[in-house]
Amino acid sequence: MARGRFITLEGGEGVGKSTQLAALAEALRARGLTVVTTREPGGSEGAEAIRRLLLEGGEERWSAPAEALLFAAARTDHVDKIVRPAILGGQWVLSDRFVDSSLAYQGGAGGLGIEAVRAVNAFGIEGWFPDRTLLLLHPEGAERARARDGAASDRIGGRPASYHQAVEESFRAIAAAEPERVRLIDASGTPEEVTARLLAALGDLL
Amino acid sequence: MARGRFITLEGGEGVGKSTQLAALAEALRARGLTVVTTREPGGSEGAEAIRRLLLEGGEERWSAPAEALLFAAARTDHVDKIVRPAILGGQWVLSDRFVDSSLAYQGGAGGLGIEAVRAVNAFGIEGWFPDRTLLLLHPEGAERARARDGAASDRIGGRPASYHQAVEESFRAIAAAEPERVRLIDASGTPEEVTARLLAALGDLL
Repeated sequence: MARGRFITLEGGEGVGKSTQLAALAEALRARGLTVVTTREPGGSEGAEAIRRLLLEGGEERWSAPAEALLFAAARTDHVDKIVRPAILGGQWVLSDRFVDSSLAYQGGAGGLGIEAVRAVNAFGIEGWFPDRTLLLLHPEGAERARARDGAASDRIGGRPASYHQAVEESFRAIAAAEPERVRLIDASGTPEEVTARLLAALGDLL
Repeated sequence: MARGRFITLEGGEGVGKSTQLAALAEALRARGLTVVTTREPGGSEGAEAIRRLLLEGGEERWSAPAEALLFAAARTDHVDKIVRPAILGGQWVLSDRFVDSSLAYQGGAGGLGIEAVRAVNAFGIEGWFPDRTLLLLHPEGAERARARDGAASDRIGGRPASYHQAVEESFRAIAAAEPERVRLIDASGTPEEVTARLLAALGDLL
């Protein structure tokens, strides 16, 4: 049986990842592929239990390094229980956020360092980095896009504009360092236009 | 205010760490020191919540890397909330197990590698390695000591003799690599004799 592919969607708050994940899954299924959709934080039973720990309490409940280790542990369980078995079983896995969110949020914007956070995650997920990461970006910038999307929904969404700008800059730095894996996708236009761009960025894998 | 000291007790199952921790705390208090005793896994509210996650479910609930990341996250919270504030406040902190248990159990005996597990933990606890680690060892060896101590109490205690032998060898390797920090303590004889050895191994810090 041919190995499936591991595709992740990344980007800041309100850029349309969830909508596009569903549309991309549909488009890939229409091509005859078996597709599993998942998301982070969470995605497996153990990871969801860790996610509940992360969401409880206020901004001071966990230090930044503790939070990054918990995200890495949750991601490891997600890979162990969902991602790896599906891909080895020939399925395509589409995940709404994965390791690059930790690199951008905790590593870059949070100040822990992109390489330090990458090392902690690599310890957990071993070789299971995505085959392709689709980074959705609004040409008008992170903050304007977020404002348009409505009120902040959680403690990360509610952080100041400078934080969201740092997240976007970190995502762009990761993409620049790994241009083969990470592709920048213009998230403006109609949903159908964006889905077509995502599919085009997977052309060599199909 | 003078900074306190951070002392950890390590060793295999049934070597008498808990009894000795209490006796050592008493002896240090008799010298006029303010002493906080704590333990791992657990030791802080967040770490206890992670500990509950670790203890739930069977042997297959968490992969070895996921378990090591959860231990590291719990340890980071333990340092953030208990160890560091106490030491900066002039207190001595005595912990029943700390980072060396992860290095020996997950890193050495568990096959993840002592250095890899050390790196993940150093990310979380930053500079907060112990000032002194007292490694309790039975001269008759890990397995005999464990058998004498009675039935296995949990999923780690219940592992085979070869596992406990590998744990002891890993502890000895850590001690050999860091002789200034980690001191080998003969755990045979009366409890009072062992406590006297522990105190002697702290002589330069008192």
